[in-house]
Amino acid sequence: MAGSTFGTLFRVTTFGESHGAALGAVIDGCPAGLQLVEEDIQAYLDRRKPGQSQFTTARKEGDRCRILSGVFEGRTEGTPIAVVVENTDQRSKDYSAIQNLYRPGHADFGYDMKYGFRDYRGGGRSSGRETIGRVIGGAVAAKVLSEFKIRAEAWTESVGPFAVPEEKLAPETLDIRECRKNPLWMPDQETAAKAESYLCEVKNGLDSCGGIVGCRICGVPAGLGEPVFDKLDALLSQAVMSLGAVKGIEFGSGFKAALLRGSEDNDSFCAAAGDSGARLRCPLPIEKTSNHAGGVLGGLSDGSEIRFRAAVKATPSIARKQRTVDRNGRDTEIEIRGRHDPVIMPRAAVVIECMADLVILDLLLRNTAARMEFLRKIYG
Amino acid sequence: MAGSTFGTLFRVTTFGESHGAALGAVIDGCPAGLQLVEEDIQAYLDRRKPGQSQFTTARKEGDRCRILSGVFEGRTEGTPIAVVVENTDQRSKDYSAIQNLYRPGHADFGYDMKYGFRDYRGGGRSSGRETIGRVIGGAVAAKVLSEFKIRAEAWTESVGPFAVPEEKLAPETLDIRECRKNPLWMPDQETAAKAESYLCEVKNGLDSCGGIVGCRICGVPAGLGEPVFDKLDALLSQAVMSLGAVKGIEFGSGFKAALLRGSEDNDSFCAAAGDSGARLRCPLPIEKTSNHAGGVLGGLSDGSEIRFRAAVKATPSIARKQRTVDRNGRDTEIEIRGRHDPVIMPRAAVVIECMADLVILDLLLRNTAARMEFLRKIYG
Amino acid sequence: MAGSTFGTLFRVTTFGESHGAALGAVIDGCPAGLQLVEEDIQAYLDRRKPGQSQFTTARKEGDRCRILSGVFEGRTEGTPIAVVVENTDQRSKDYSAIQNLYRPGHADFGYDMKYGFRDYRGGGRSSGRETIGRVIGGAVAAKVLSEFKIRAEAWTESVGPFAVPEEKLAPETLDIRECRKNPLWMPDQETAAKAESYLCEVKNGLDSCGGIVGCRICGVPAGLGEPVFDKLDALLSQAVMSLGAVKGIEFGSGFKAALLRGSEDNDSFCAAAGDSGARLRCPLPIEKTSNHAGGVLGGLSDGSEIRFRAAVKATPSIARKQRTVDRNGRDTEIEIRGRHDPVIMPRAAVVIECMADLVILDLLLRNTAARMEFLRKIYG
Amino acid sequence: MAGSTFGTLFRVTTFGESHGAALGAVIDGCPAGLQLVEEDIQAYLDRRKPGQSQFTTARKEGDRCRILSGVFEGRTEGTPIAVVVENTDQRSKDYSAIQNLYRPGHADFGYDMKYGFRDYRGGGRSSGRETIGRVIGGAVAAKVLSEFKIRAEAWTESVGPFAVPEEKLAPETLDIRECRKNPLWMPDQETAAKAESYLCEVKNGLDSCGGIVGCRICGVPAGLGEPVFDKLDALLSQAVMSLGAVKGIEFGSGFKAALLRGSEDNDSFCAAAGDSGARLRCPLPIEKTSNHAGGVLGGLSDGSEIRFRAAVKATPSIARKQRTVDRNGRDTEIEIRGRHDPVIMPRAAVVIECMADLVILDLLLRNTAARMEFLRKIYG
Repeated sequence: MAGSTFGTLFRVTTFGESHGAALGAVIDGCPAGLQLVEEDIQAYLDRRKPGQSQFTTARKEGDRCRILSGVFEGRTEGTPIAVVVENTDQRSKDYSAIQNLYRPGHADFGYDMKYGFRDYRGGGRSSGRETIGRVIGGAVAAKVLSEFKIRAEAWTESVGPFAVPEEKLAPETLDIRECRKNPLWMPDQETAAKAESYLCEVKNGLDSCGGIVGCRICGVPAGLGEPVFDKLDALLSQAVMSLGAVKGIEFGSGFKAALLRGSEDNDSFCAAAGDSGARLRCPLPIEKTSNHAGGVLGGLSDGSEIRFRAAVKATPSIARKQRTVDRNGRDTEIEIRGRHDPVIMPRAAVVIECMADLVILDLLLRNTAARMEFLRKIYG
Repeated sequence: MAGSTFGTLFRVTTFGESHGAALGAVIDGCPAGLQLVEEDIQAYLDRRKPGQSQFTTARKEGDRCRILSGVFEGRTEGTPIAVVVENTDQRSKDYSAIQNLYRPGHADFGYDMKYGFRDYRGGGRSSGRETIGRVIGGAVAAKVLSEFKIRAEAWTESVGPFAVPEEKLAPETLDIRECRKNPLWMPDQETAAKAESYLCEVKNGLDSCGGIVGCRICGVPAGLGEPVFDKLDALLSQAVMSLGAVKGIEFGSGFKAALLRGSEDNDSFCAAAGDSGARLRCPLPIEKTSNHAGGVLGGLSDGSEIRFRAAVKATPSIARKQRTVDRNGRDTEIEIRGRHDPVIMPRAAVVIECMADLVILDLLLRNTAARMEFLRKIYG
Repeated sequence: MAGSTFGTLFRVTTFGESHGAALGAVIDGCPAGLQLVEEDIQAYLDRRKPGQSQFTTARKEGDRCRILSGVFEGRTEGTPIAVVVENTDQRSKDYSAIQNLYRPGHADFGYDMKYGFRDYRGGGRSSGRETIGRVIGGAVAAKVLSEFKIRAEAWTESVGPFAVPEEKLAPETLDIRECRKNPLWMPDQETAAKAESYLCEVKNGLDSCGGIVGCRICGVPAGLGEPVFDKLDALLSQAVMSLGAVKGIEFGSGFKAALLRGSEDNDSFCAAAGDSGARLRCPLPIEKTSNHAGGVLGGLSDGSEIRFRAAVKATPSIARKQRTVDRNGRDTEIEIRGRHDPVIMPRAAVVIECMADLVILDLLLRNTAARMEFLRKIYG
Repeated sequence: MAGSTFGTLFRVTTFGESHGAALGAVIDGCPAGLQLVEEDIQAYLDRRKPGQSQFTTARKEGDRCRILSGVFEGRTEGTPIAVVVENTDQRSKDYSAIQNLYRPGHADFGYDMKYGFRDYRGGGRSSGRETIGRVIGGAVAAKVLSEFKIRAEAWTESVGPFAVPEEKLAPETLDIRECRKNPLWMPDQETAAKAESYLCEVKNGLDSCGGIVGCRICGVPAGLGEPVFDKLDALLSQAVMSLGAVKGIEFGSGFKAALLRGSEDNDSFCAAAGDSGARLRCPLPIEKTSNHAGGVLGGLSDGSEIRFRAAVKATPSIARKQRTVDRNGRDTEIEIRGRHDPVIMPRAAVVIECMADLVILDLLLRNTAARMEFLRKIYG
């Protein structure tokens, strides 16, 4: 089975190559009766579209979306929602020089090995443009989730060595609107300023650099996730790791948990102190004394804020000359032209947010069949 | 959809609770004609079974498996293979004291929120005994993979602050057989000795501790993985993160990649130098000058060794008194009795290895439908 | 993907061969909180078990089931329910004579072609004993459905040329309890008596014969079914046609509809006349003036009784000498020993009923995610 | 899970409403390296498109398809193939009169019950135009199958009481090209002439009529089908019964098998007589003495011609006044305007053929993972 469909009940099937006619997605399983217009989706696409700053590719794509089906009189019908974005600014000839070479750090080699040949124009299906379909799906998922006061938010947490200080990321301090104030989508202007200078230097050195994207999901009711293989953190990991540039993911304390003792790492439950924002989303009036778990216990949401971090590698397309081989396995060198972002995080953040939305909504829908009580509420 | 099935073509459905009658798995989609006997599975179960050292639970389970179907005259028939392990040493009354409390760091709370009640005996389905089904599936997958010279190997890479030095983990140096020489399943005796002392101290303090499990998969042909959602690293992440105690995963450079520049992180391809072990598994006579990618590029295997690391949290069951709430949300304290491992990695290693086997075999099978050429070889 | 799993949200995975150690099923996705004991399942297994009359095989199997997991203190936990039935009366040597021959009308040849070899003892996986797993799943599904007053009922409608008269099958006349009064499971004693005589003659002629199984499902709310591929009638057809002996299925007027005009075949809606039993199960107080559709319109239930008929072929195992070939393609003759039912319908009825239960429950669960309104009822 | 995706390895996801912007399909899992151009798909769409004779709707749609992705330099890339057909001749106002009424025989009522409201223009998603997506998928599947000399062919077998005589349908006699010579797609001109006269009379009576579509699939290798739920005939049944107008399906002798004895119904195997066309597609040089089974034994193809028949009901849209209720359940009458086919079979034939292609190709792909031998051919 090919892998272009994500989700079980809220299913998104994406399609499209970087330099093909169009990209898009078909969403099957969106509940009927949701208010939905193209602008809901466009707002998300605009966040990921190219050409927004000196740190994003100069390719000019309006990335205007068009809904082809599934919406009638402004409401979802329960039928599949097909959404298309036409490609308009392909410059395929930029790529003819590399059609027989394997770009280091890219999927070129893998595609040739898998399929016997590949669409070498702009990376074909392995291009970052592929994520348009994910954002379409995520935007619709986010609209559904907003009705239940659930919201995912992602940000650039570090660029190379420049990381937002931990205290700025505390649940009660973090303000995602700060991200709009700098081109790196960082929630702290001071760190952003340093990271920008660093990035200019990197770019001038014909290089690129990696970083970390942070994400939180607020308002998730306790008990989402499907033991034992489709746990909440397992599916979020699949979702986020399926992005080409992501090389690692961790929840809550993550890799630091490897250094902790049980007595340090266990979060204690306690009765909720008044109406604090820390109260778990569940029928009991309780909260946790800490959140090392990142909101997921045994693969189920625990009603607190879900937190994870994704390690993003440097853009593999760099202008420097690099060593590689050609399709016959002969040594050669490659110089990559084309238009590329020196850093992936600012545009990846919205995509990661969208993948989180897809996972949470799908599990919310799957959970409706978990108990006899739920069935009685509907069919009783 | 509940989540007890893993895989698309090689599908494993697991079942069983810690203190129920039995645990096991049904494997559907195992190719016909594989030599298979119970001992193939038992060898893997013996690696995960309890009671093997002072660092594993004192529960006495022989964990003998019995094949109920799918094998005829020593060969797989192509029909579902059901395998069962009976529980024999349950001590359910150890748990009656905690049936109305939520153990910190455990799934107790989540199960109650999800299903409305839970099997509190030994954690029920959320117990580590659940992994018996995974090991059954993985053992059969490993048998298939061994015919194609593909092999996954996992080890304890660190216990708390004690980590195996990087040079001992180099592809050509690492010898998994070393793990059998110490109770922590570490491939380096020196580190193991230190970790053992540390662990005794932790245990005496009525505590537990975390660590890291490393894993490599050798011999995977280039091109496995299914863009865009079922990429090799995405599915391995789901597989490994679906283990209750795992809080993070990274491939190759992983989180370190966030600090690197493209020129540092990109692995270059080059013509293979003689018959070095580094030659990629693919039709071209090439290798890579480094393996920061951990063997996965754009979600497809690149024919080099696949490497990942999983962060494992400390066993949440600790003998110390802990703060928590009861089923009515009232503050209280909990003391956990029962028999628990102070550290999870030594027994988790074989489970992670098995999850890796399941992913690789499933993708190997899915890949048989990827090209017209492959179909011609079979139906030509 | 092998095909041993049925259903999307209520998923049943079956396993087992005729002469293997055991048969059974794992049910994943049963809502938590259902009262369930082994006897609920045993009652259904007893209806399909062999040795109940002169028209069923003389094989003696108690077919006692054992629940291995998923039920705690008499209630389903939401975790997978594994149920096993051990084989006890295998007589495998009856089959050694035919291990290299292909029985006409059987799957022997197909299994050899597919898998390269086969378990020839009693047909292996292609035996009618395979349906034990289906009945286990169906029994649990029926228990869930009964809480919502939904019930499937199947009967033998004809044996060879002897068919229950149409007026005895009218919704208000048909009484399924009549089936218990004769060994052929027919709802009309007069027809049953004639069919029995006919069948004795057939059996004495070392032959077998076909017939029809009818089925109705009462109480299904309007709107179940998932356009466009997983329509209610489409899934029921897959479910029923997946039984080895079934060669055709039709809903409502079925093949007779091919002869009708639109003005004859269309069922009209009308306001419900008082509290007649014909009132559709839906929020509107309406009924239909006829039910040529068999309760399914455009693939969705219309709230009236669902009706279908399945054509069952004669048992292919007959004692007469038959022409066939061996595994090398050479002409030969075959005489089938072993213990076989001369007619399949009486025992197939309960299996068809169970398959109907599986489909309806799965669609009921899938439907919980169909509307924003439903989500609001659960997550408010 | 909504039901807009069909297939496991060759997966088609369709979308689109009768009067929406566009209809189409995304095909995921088409093997890489297939020669494919838009004309391959257009040829199939042209067979189903409206306006071809007096017996098809007068709606004027060119139904031109456009491939948006997945094809590069004339070959499939292994990535999803998205294909779109724009709607151009919607006349939605024809439908405003019926937006609050339930057309008898249609899905209107079911959609309202399921989703809470519906797109009433031309039936929305339940329109026959929905089958455009199926034909897109089927055309691509047929192209793959043609490389392996497998071919599905469907025809109109009867119109009301006028049926093609059985001898004209014998495997060696039937010539599908005859269908092109009459507007009813019948393989016999004499029957077609009678049926045309009958149909004119029906149409003049403001009525419609039903009939039967026959289908054969030639060249299918023995052993396709996935026991026990995804048998070849089970999946073909789901596929064909998922068409709105189909009310029954039967294989080989079908419902006639219910009247036969085992000695009559069993097909005997025998050594192949020379190079007769009846030789089974399998490694053994054998044939069958009859084909009552319709080419499917125990759910697996037996290497002979696969034969099934589908009962198609009369077009429910008839111009006569009919009794019905409105959305409030009040009695009323309805007169259906719009443009409708008086008979469905001629255009349904190509759709049924396409559904057969989808099933066969999917099972062909699934079968590549069935045996260790097959894996060795690819990875050996």
